[in-house]
Amino acid sequence: MLNFDFYNPTHIAFGEGKIADLNTLVPHNARVLMLYGGGSIHKNGVYDEVKLALGSRLVAEFSGIEPNPTYETLMKAVAEVKAHQIDFLLAVGGGSVIDGTKFVAAAAVFEGDDPWEILEKRGNNVNSALPFGSVLTLPATGSEMNSGAVITRTSIHAKLAFGSRHCFPQFSVLDPVKTYTLPVRQVGNGVVDAFVHVMEQYLTYPVNAPVQDRFAEGILLTLIEEGPKALETPENYEVRANLMWAATMALNGVISTGVPQDWATHMIGHELTALHGLDHAQTLAIILPAMLRVRKEAKREKLLQFADRVWGLRDGDEASRIESAISRMQAFFETMGVKTRLQDYGLGAEHIPALIASLEAHRMTKLGERRDVTPDISRQVLELAI
Amino acid sequence: MLNFDFYNPTHIAFGEGKIADLNTLVPHNARVLMLYGGGSIHKNGVYDEVKLALGSRLVAEFSGIEPNPTYETLMKAVAEVKAHQIDFLLAVGGGSVIDGTKFVAAAAVFEGDDPWEILEKRGNNVNSALPFGSVLTLPATGSEMNSGAVITRTSIHAKLAFGSRHCFPQFSVLDPVKTYTLPVRQVGNGVVDAFVHVMEQYLTYPVNAPVQDRFAEGILLTLIEEGPKALETPENYEVRANLMWAATMALNGVISTGVPQDWATHMIGHELTALHGLDHAQTLAIILPAMLRVRKEAKREKLLQFADRVWGLRDGDEASRIESAISRMQAFFETMGVKTRLQDYGLGAEHIPALIASLEAHRMTKLGERRDVTPDISRQVLELAI
Repeated sequence: MLNFDFYNPTHIAFGEGKIADLNTLVPHNARVLMLYGGGSIHKNGVYDEVKLALGSRLVAEFSGIEPNPTYETLMKAVAEVKAHQIDFLLAVGGGSVIDGTKFVAAAAVFEGDDPWEILEKRGNNVNSALPFGSVLTLPATGSEMNSGAVITRTSIHAKLAFGSRHCFPQFSVLDPVKTYTLPVRQVGNGVVDAFVHVMEQYLTYPVNAPVQDRFAEGILLTLIEEGPKALETPENYEVRANLMWAATMALNGVISTGVPQDWATHMIGHELTALHGLDHAQTLAIILPAMLRVRKEAKREKLLQFADRVWGLRDGDEASRIESAISRMQAFFETMGVKTRLQDYGLGAEHIPALIASLEAHRMTKLGERRDVTPDISRQVLELAI
Repeated sequence: MLNFDFYNPTHIAFGEGKIADLNTLVPHNARVLMLYGGGSIHKNGVYDEVKLALGSRLVAEFSGIEPNPTYETLMKAVAEVKAHQIDFLLAVGGGSVIDGTKFVAAAAVFEGDDPWEILEKRGNNVNSALPFGSVLTLPATGSEMNSGAVITRTSIHAKLAFGSRHCFPQFSVLDPVKTYTLPVRQVGNGVVDAFVHVMEQYLTYPVNAPVQDRFAEGILLTLIEEGPKALETPENYEVRANLMWAATMALNGVISTGVPQDWATHMIGHELTALHGLDHAQTLAIILPAMLRVRKEAKREKLLQFADRVWGLRDGDEASRIESAISRMQAFFETMGVKTRLQDYGLGAEHIPALIASLEAHRMTKLGERRDVTPDISRQVLELAI
């Protein structure tokens, strides 16, 4: 096991009816800015429940945070914070709204010249942030219980990540009932997103960390079992609850303690979203199977463990078990309604040079758990993913 | 899954050499009281490393916190805190030292008349506590990453638990190297203690919580695999690291999210320690096998899951699989050097009435995940454990 630090102070309030707890979770004298995306929270009742729970607190609103939240939009929210002397942010939505709120929280009190520097420095220049909480409506990104965020700057086609210990939500409310009405596409994306988060922390090389490995495998098995059920029976509370908790545990720091991490799939995926607008999970579903095939030698031992413990593949030679495991994973993504080839999204070989150029422009030239995923290897991955 | 709240702000600094991080973890202007047990930290170098890391900070010391820390001893530490205007506590030791420090932290600022009321009210009357951290030397109790403690009052033969959200360590430093020199008895006790902690949260009744179940099973499997290796090769870093992290994850709130909890074995065990001085883990090793046998109908489904997933028992009828699983667990405790019958400790049927009377005196009359473990059932358990 590698040395590590673990710190995660986010209070999770989980279960049906828990939105009412906002009345104790948000300070009574807070001047709140409630941030959300489109109109879904008006349709599913979340907006009304949140407002009711906040009672007589002063609540301003900022709506219109888009999927892959943009710097351009979020800077408007920062202006609202300053205009109304807001001292508490409440994100109501999925990972994009929570990620965006983290940026607003940091940018509103940023001491530098331009808050975009937060992304350029990956958050190392964040020394404080406004306190904030979240009400999660879409299990997927894990943003509700971590301190990271990914922000897009449309004008320069950049999608970059930052993180800071000042950017943990103080609390997140997770009510599985509020996920019943999610569109099928978002359910599928969410399951794939959580699955790939686990893989980025698990499918590297062994460091003798059996607790972390088994936790990771436990989340993967749960996503495989419960994901399809959520598509079949959308109003099954237990299925929704298990998916919601699995997605949170997939990226709250627990399974990454003391183990190497990859994240190359995410970095290449970010370029696909920035240049071509694909959903985040779609990019992961395209890149990961190809990445594992290209890097199967470097990841051999963990691929065999994944084949055995997650897919029950114990017969045949090593190469066939590895290929079967990757194929099963890819088929699972397709089962969740997420296509896994570039061509499924109208993309081909002609788009690869620009993607590689973007990776290089963003200094994503040494990716992966051993920093040996060069632009040339990223090109091989993209070519195999066509 | 049941509704739940999860909150755990303890910062974990894990790995070889991490004691040096105290220099950043403890405030530079702190007036520190360092609390420890006997002389082992002088022999294994921990004392010197801690002092070095604390640098020029003002550090007072309080030694002599015993296994099953007593109210009598701890109140002397409270007097030291007040005499020296201490504003930060640093526990250096195992679960007893950390538990004791939690009580000192709460008692030093307690607003009531007598800090023993903290135990009588189970901590519900704790409104604040001094900040504190820990350096863990004995993986076992999980106290390094939770907010609970068990305190003994010798004068009245009482061993009671309390907990408060104000009593999380701010940080805990876990260096597996510092566990190399532990006596065999403490290694065995620690593994059994962690194992039973998991069982109290896992072996109840199913609520469809697959992530939590698999996490629990992952910790149990790790303890079963790594525990005996720690006895065979005491200076194996990886084994010690895995045991240390397994014991922390066993009782930091992660695996208890959304599931029922039992704790009847612990409550009966506390009486055995209070009346007869047995090690905490010895009491658990005695009580748990008998408890599972007496309550095998109520726990049937989870016992079958435990037999299957932890012990690989899939053949034979249900009753034989359940008995085999319990026997295997009991044999594992014995392998770790912890005897599992009352008679192994010189105790027999004649001691049971007083144990039951103590349970009743401490209002431990409705125990277990369904509150149906009456004194009569506790008596059956003790009789079966002879």
